Amino acid sequence: MSFDDNLDRLARLCVGFGLQVKPGQELLITADIGAADLVRRITREAYGAGASNVQVFFADDAITLARFTHGSEDAIETAPGWLFEAMAGAMRNGSARLAIAGGTPGLLAEQDPGKVARANAAQSVAAKPFMEVVTSGLTNWNIVPFVTEGWAKQVYPDLPVAEAVETLWGHVFRALRLDHDDPVAAWQTVFDTLAKRREYLTERAFSALHFEGGGTDLTLGLAKGHVWAGGGLRLADGTGYAPNLPTEEVFTMPDRGRAEGRAVFTKPAVINGTIVEGLVVEFAGGKAVKITADKGEAVAQTYFTSDEGASRLGEVALVPESSPIARSDVLYFNTLFDENAACHIAFGNSYSMNLAPGADREAAGANESTIHMDCMIGGPELSVTGIASDGNRHPIMEKGEFVI
Amino acid sequence: MSFDDNLDRLARLCVGFGLQVKPGQELLITADIGAADLVRRITREAYGAGASNVQVFFADDAITLARFTHGSEDAIETAPGWLFEAMAGAMRNGSARLAIAGGTPGLLAEQDPGKVARANAAQSVAAKPFMEVVTSGLTNWNIVPFVTEGWAKQVYPDLPVAEAVETLWGHVFRALRLDHDDPVAAWQTVFDTLAKRREYLTERAFSALHFEGGGTDLTLGLAKGHVWAGGGLRLADGTGYAPNLPTEEVFTMPDRGRAEGRAVFTKPAVINGTIVEGLVVEFAGGKAVKITADKGEAVAQTYFTSDEGASRLGEVALVPESSPIARSDVLYFNTLFDENAACHIAFGNSYSMNLAPGADREAAGANESTIHMDCMIGGPELSVTGIASDGNRHPIMEKGEFVI
Repeated sequence: MSFDDNLDRLARLCVGFGLQVKPGQELLITADIGAADLVRRITREAYGAGASNVQVFFADDAITLARFTHGSEDAIETAPGWLFEAMAGAMRNGSARLAIAGGTPGLLAEQDPGKVARANAAQSVAAKPFMEVVTSGLTNWNIVPFVTEGWAKQVYPDLPVAEAVETLWGHVFRALRLDHDDPVAAWQTVFDTLAKRREYLTERAFSALHFEGGGTDLTLGLAKGHVWAGGGLRLADGTGYAPNLPTEEVFTMPDRGRAEGRAVFTKPAVINGTIVEGLVVEFAGGKAVKITADKGEAVAQTYFTSDEGASRLGEVALVPESSPIARSDVLYFNTLFDENAACHIAFGNSYSMNLAPGADREAAGANESTIHMDCMIGGPELSVTGIASDGNRHPIMEKGEFVI
Repeated sequence: MSFDDNLDRLARLCVGFGLQVKPGQELLITADIGAADLVRRITREAYGAGASNVQVFFADDAITLARFTHGSEDAIETAPGWLFEAMAGAMRNGSARLAIAGGTPGLLAEQDPGKVARANAAQSVAAKPFMEVVTSGLTNWNIVPFVTEGWAKQVYPDLPVAEAVETLWGHVFRALRLDHDDPVAAWQTVFDTLAKRREYLTERAFSALHFEGGGTDLTLGLAKGHVWAGGGLRLADGTGYAPNLPTEEVFTMPDRGRAEGRAVFTKPAVINGTIVEGLVVEFAGGKAVKITADKGEAVAQTYFTSDEGASRLGEVALVPESSPIARSDVLYFNTLFDENAACHIAFGNSYSMNLAPGADREAAGANESTIHMDCMIGGPELSVTGIASDGNRHPIMEKGEFVI
């Protein structure tokens, strides 16, 4: 299979399976300028599927950096709320939304952490209406990867850049099941497994989960009436879609007031361009009360206290160590991959899809925030135990693998 | 001077003289993806000048084409009105606006002219709120060129592409006075000359202009209370700016009801990607009553009848044959250059800046339309005569040169 063939297959998988673009539907795409080749193929695919308009918003590393290297304090704290609001409006009117993930992970590593934190906070506040529509289940959305040079250099700093790009694409194509004769059929099998796990866990309705191993000892209350999700989603009109490709996780909503103990994060988190390594967080009463990190500590501390909900949890997700991404044993510096290599918890806003439709978020224990940041706690030492409301303990994962 | 130096000088000219970005002002940039190098330099320059946010909207030939090659009829007639409205809103709130001109002129030449016309009409309607803000004098705006491969190939089809790009850049840098030690001082001299012409012509308050030569014999009534513009403009708060770089024209508003005779257009017009050549238009009562062309006739006929005002005139502009762009004797297939090589008239909407502030457009004879398309009638044979309200005739240009 040539590289071009694989990109075409990725475009077809994205439009036909990931997004399931409907005739007459508009599609909004955000992508790095380096991903233009894939964006062009996806655009043709989407028009072929009947899209009424494909609107692409290209970002560029040098333009992003210029705000920090040449911008005033005013510029650091400014974000285009009007544009996020306009995109949110388009989605409320039915537009689908695609993000191409693959920007340079450490882009802002050399910049002043205080500036980065203030810029991130401004960006999060401005993007809130947009993120609310994305996570509300109103419209079909999808994230797929594209290997940019900036990303590949971060993953393989010691390889020549062309080789780094090629090697990383190899992993990406395999993680996307594009090495299968019929990638959609392969994904249907994955989605069937995820459906079994989420149905089992939803039915059990555990009161809490206990994570233990590799330094982590964390008891996490689950929201009242929580629903486990993972794999495919479905709009009110019956349209199915697959938000993340690749995806290996089942996930639900924690209770914002019940997290106790210590989480040792096993992979770096990329917080809007800054790589945070060696993160350790202690929780009490649902809140992160102590945040330390070997690298990027200031960025993490500021980010996780940027609003009241940013220090509490909005998601918990289970991923086995046998997932193809975990087995590749690559540190991707990209949430779309690293979150599918390991169990994780997310700081910030929780997803309404993890409650029954129309449920009272406040009463259920949902967390509210302008941020949502996945942080990996999974590893080969981790066990996960479900704690029922009667106090009984049920093993869910042992040594990183499902036992249900 | 290296190419990089020239691009940096262009970025400085654009931000410091063309736009005169104010501290705290947002800047919206539209550009072809091929112009990213210049956009990056301009972004750094604008942040350096105190811009609060630089928001870039990149277009891409392949993405534009995909609508025609892969899109449904629905897609042909869809344009993102919500995005134009959002950008118009940002400008009403004070954002400056920069267009980088340099897309591929004949991009849509191979496409079905009916489809192209319907797509153009949908685009014009959707863009109207945006164009209204641009032409209302509410905010500072600027257009500068960037030589893309697609543009250079159109101008020099027989040269190897790298040589075509280099040759065209040479003309562009000279037209922009970047070969002068102090390009801003050079532009100030040009603007002084334009100011003298526009002041003379405004003071004379001619009732009509008579264009004659090279097959053209056209008498064009001027709007009541018309004002000649050209060179620099000034916002209500006193900020000066230079909308077009390069620019060599003085221009004013015709009376929508008074154009009689025949215009033979001396350069091709690029109508949203289709090149129209050999255009001849006969006017009666201000209206184009017969439109013929050697190439692109259907696109021109449809475009110039896309609404009531599209067949009437919104601008008349005078440019001497001795302008550096005319002297380069290159057909640029790009309005920003070709309009500055020759006298021209524009079909469609007229500019309020060509009347006194607050004047009644309707009563003055202003034309209203969703389109505004410059078409060149100038040439070495053309004479222009001013006709005063008492019927007296005053020579303005002879054999393509000013005699005032």
